[in-house]
Amino acid sequence: MKLQGTSIIGSNRGQGSEAMGQSINPATNQTIDPSYITATEAEMQQAVSLAAEAFKTYRHTSGADKAVFLRTIADNIEAVIEELVARMPLETGLPEMRVRGEAGRTCGQLRLFAGLLEEGSWVDARIDFAQPERQPLPKVDTRSMLRALGPVAVFAASNFPLAFSTAGGDTASALAAGCPVIVKAHSSHSGTAEIVGLAVQQAVASCGLPEGVFSLLYGGGRTIGQALVQHPVIKAVGFTGSYAGGRALMDLAAARAEPIPVYAEMSAINPVVILPGAAAERGAQIAQGLHGSMTLGVGQFCTNPGLIFIHEDHAEVLATETAKLVATSASSAMLNSGICDAYCSGLDALESHAGVVRLAKADAGDGANQAVAALFQTDIKTFLSSEALTDEVFGPASIIVTYNDEADLLTAMQSLEGQLTASVHGTDAELATQGELVSVMEDRAGRLVFNGFPTGVEVCSSMVHGGPFPATSDGRSTSVGSMAIYRFTRAVCWQDCPQALLPDELKDGNPLAIKRSEV
Amino acid sequence: MKLQGTSIIGSNRGQGSEAMGQSINPATNQTIDPSYITATEAEMQQAVSLAAEAFKTYRHTSGADKAVFLRTIADNIEAVIEELVARMPLETGLPEMRVRGEAGRTCGQLRLFAGLLEEGSWVDARIDFAQPERQPLPKVDTRSMLRALGPVAVFAASNFPLAFSTAGGDTASALAAGCPVIVKAHSSHSGTAEIVGLAVQQAVASCGLPEGVFSLLYGGGRTIGQALVQHPVIKAVGFTGSYAGGRALMDLAAARAEPIPVYAEMSAINPVVILPGAAAERGAQIAQGLHGSMTLGVGQFCTNPGLIFIHEDHAEVLATETAKLVATSASSAMLNSGICDAYCSGLDALESHAGVVRLAKADAGDGANQAVAALFQTDIKTFLSSEALTDEVFGPASIIVTYNDEADLLTAMQSLEGQLTASVHGTDAELATQGELVSVMEDRAGRLVFNGFPTGVEVCSSMVHGGPFPATSDGRSTSVGSMAIYRFTRAVCWQDCPQALLPDELKDGNPLAIKRSEV
Repeated sequence: MKLQGTSIIGSNRGQGSEAMGQSINPATNQTIDPSYITATEAEMQQAVSLAAEAFKTYRHTSGADKAVFLRTIADNIEAVIEELVARMPLETGLPEMRVRGEAGRTCGQLRLFAGLLEEGSWVDARIDFAQPERQPLPKVDTRSMLRALGPVAVFAASNFPLAFSTAGGDTASALAAGCPVIVKAHSSHSGTAEIVGLAVQQAVASCGLPEGVFSLLYGGGRTIGQALVQHPVIKAVGFTGSYAGGRALMDLAAARAEPIPVYAEMSAINPVVILPGAAAERGAQIAQGLHGSMTLGVGQFCTNPGLIFIHEDHAEVLATETAKLVATSASSAMLNSGICDAYCSGLDALESHAGVVRLAKADAGDGANQAVAALFQTDIKTFLSSEALTDEVFGPASIIVTYNDEADLLTAMQSLEGQLTASVHGTDAELATQGELVSVMEDRAGRLVFNGFPTGVEVCSSMVHGGPFPATSDGRSTSVGSMAIYRFTRAVCWQDCPQALLPDELKDGNPLAIKRSEV
Repeated sequence: MKLQGTSIIGSNRGQGSEAMGQSINPATNQTIDPSYITATEAEMQQAVSLAAEAFKTYRHTSGADKAVFLRTIADNIEAVIEELVARMPLETGLPEMRVRGEAGRTCGQLRLFAGLLEEGSWVDARIDFAQPERQPLPKVDTRSMLRALGPVAVFAASNFPLAFSTAGGDTASALAAGCPVIVKAHSSHSGTAEIVGLAVQQAVASCGLPEGVFSLLYGGGRTIGQALVQHPVIKAVGFTGSYAGGRALMDLAAARAEPIPVYAEMSAINPVVILPGAAAERGAQIAQGLHGSMTLGVGQFCTNPGLIFIHEDHAEVLATETAKLVATSASSAMLNSGICDAYCSGLDALESHAGVVRLAKADAGDGANQAVAALFQTDIKTFLSSEALTDEVFGPASIIVTYNDEADLLTAMQSLEGQLTASVHGTDAELATQGELVSVMEDRAGRLVFNGFPTGVEVCSSMVHGGPFPATSDGRSTSVGSMAIYRFTRAVCWQDCPQALLPDELKDGNPLAIKRSEV
């Protein structure tokens, strides 16, 4: 496939005007052809107009037809997997195995939503039949179901070039809900975006959908992205990235004449508590799991475990074993030089933080932008007196925090900002006594992990990949799993509506045979 | 019952410092004892601290226990119904029948949520069982359900002293979800608030719940309300009132270090379309229904029909008949002098608007703050060229807008801001041809009414009393009906959690026998 370097505007390609530049191989700092071109303001407007036009019909496209569309996207992505394998590692420093794995997850997500649409009950259909004889007033017939919000802007994530980018979770859930999507590509993997974007564009065409259902915009800087979020046609925003970036979009969206929801997944340090019994029983095994979780994907996962709380009397085995593994970890290139620079600054800050000691640091291997795994240790008094220690260090670094009083542990957990996850390791007997700790974990996080590590997010119906602010901008929602579809819907009620005008989901006789609440 | 005029802070009463003043009888402009006292900053802090403390246990209080609590509040309100009948009409100008009706609705809402909690399936329990044998990676066990967001601030509405105030819809749905509530009373009906607030306070005590589950604050000006919305402990806000007031709270909440959701129900003009066939078949009957809807509650309902679209060839009967009824309507006192002044200004603006004619205006009766019903007419060209004609005139006034081209009607409907409701009257045959109109109605409103009028909102499981901004700040939600509980919840996921630590809703064997999704 010859990449063109231009935006995808409905069924066409943009021309652009200003060069955004080539992708850069983070492991070599070499540029990769082609040069990408920033979408013009007029192209952005065109994508938005097409999306508005497409929404008129796509919002009422049947679940069956939307399912075919999502499955076609997945098939099309699989058909270009070798192109992705050739391109994505160059742009991201990620290995081929990761490309194949993440493509599998991406297609799995699309098919999960397809299955949800085919089954159809997700719309939460509710019928309260009329009661004409009711006293003192007759009761009207009311029926409700969820409908699509409107065109959605999706900002691709740096750290998931497939699963949270062009046809990733946000795009899949918005398309499933019935919302046209305009993706703002991430400049770290422009070529990967183009390959996937073309796969989606072809699916739109072959499924006979209006072209405005999908567009993909390239843009250097923030101009295009900000204009998208401020455009009156756009009704919701999906974003995965830094706190600063997410908060900027939230503030823009809140200041609009018509404020809109922003679903931004931002920062988390994902605390892990290791209780004494577990540490004594299987300290070395936990160390192995912890090391695997903290270094997975060069530590570039939002669920990376950044804080490990452990009783000081039981910390030694865990600290020693984890340090050994960390010290011998192979270094790898991070996604881009900006992320690597930020990681290095984060390490420097920990190195020079009073009361924090470095237990281990891996050696840097050959190549540019290498992240070396690192392990630090401090005590809970130091931790509680320093806000800096709760800052996310995005990369393969963790801090062990020792405590000797459970009350301090509870205070520390309660003092954390909102998290995507909170984990605890314990024997059955000791977990049974930790109701208060688990309650605090629930207060601070979206997902509670028992005897496991936070990386490795299942894409399923009960997954919550969200959590109180600032883990996500809107802790009422999830970005992974089938519940993500609810971010892009609102309920509509039909009162005394003639059968012919009702959606099939609400018609008498339940022609789609979905689960409904009927009273 | 001797009213004290002070805030309710958990199980105690506030002292306050500054006088906020007495309630005023809008029909006489006379003051009513006692004088109410603004809560101090320290009292607000105390209410918030108690709410935070109460949340620790109330969030996990069983559905059965919360149901008993809500039923007890309803019983307690019914026990003081004669006190309400004695007080509320003096403060609001509303008649006794309204007090009894609205109290019935208020208690009905509380019992609706009690029933929902007793049945229990509302928590959307989902279980994806472990698959230890799965390749290439074993699947963990994940289970999710909805949990309470945290303490909620509720701003009482001027126009529903019972059903959307102290123990109204917002309070009932938040308490049902497991959230402590702090109500900011509306200064138009302080005594009604105190009577109901004491009923809630007694229910908290008799149900053995932590006192901080409920507080009621009085405050002149905006200081207390703004401080509440900005307080870090508060996790969501419910509000019913003006656009200016709602938007101010939205902006405050969005600017917090931790932004929180604001559910503000603000303004709507609730368009009604009368198609030619319906007008010809039953113009006089529609006129009667329209008059009843526009004057109900002195036009002080959020669902008041402010715009009536009708084909110019069929407008005469409707206009003439409605005008006759409007001209002979009895005037009534509005809720307070501020609302009455705003209504009079709204009428003046319509009177002097070029291209708008007044068809009828009722006579003012005796008493202060009298709202007279009024009916205006214009054509769709005038309407489309004047934004002022889409401003809500809160009170018993409507504008008939005549059209002769259906395309103009569609343009006008599409140009409206978000609405709580959109209604259409038509014969079965002509409705069947109006798919495009209905689609535009769906785009602009939360509830679509067929051959009926928008006032008279059913409190049931399929009701949507919401709609795109600015009808509500968050069109994804409803303030009426059982779906309102979802405004105050977020999903939490437990991964590989021991049975003993799981909520009952998610335990193996389904001990609460609720509907669950299990895969």
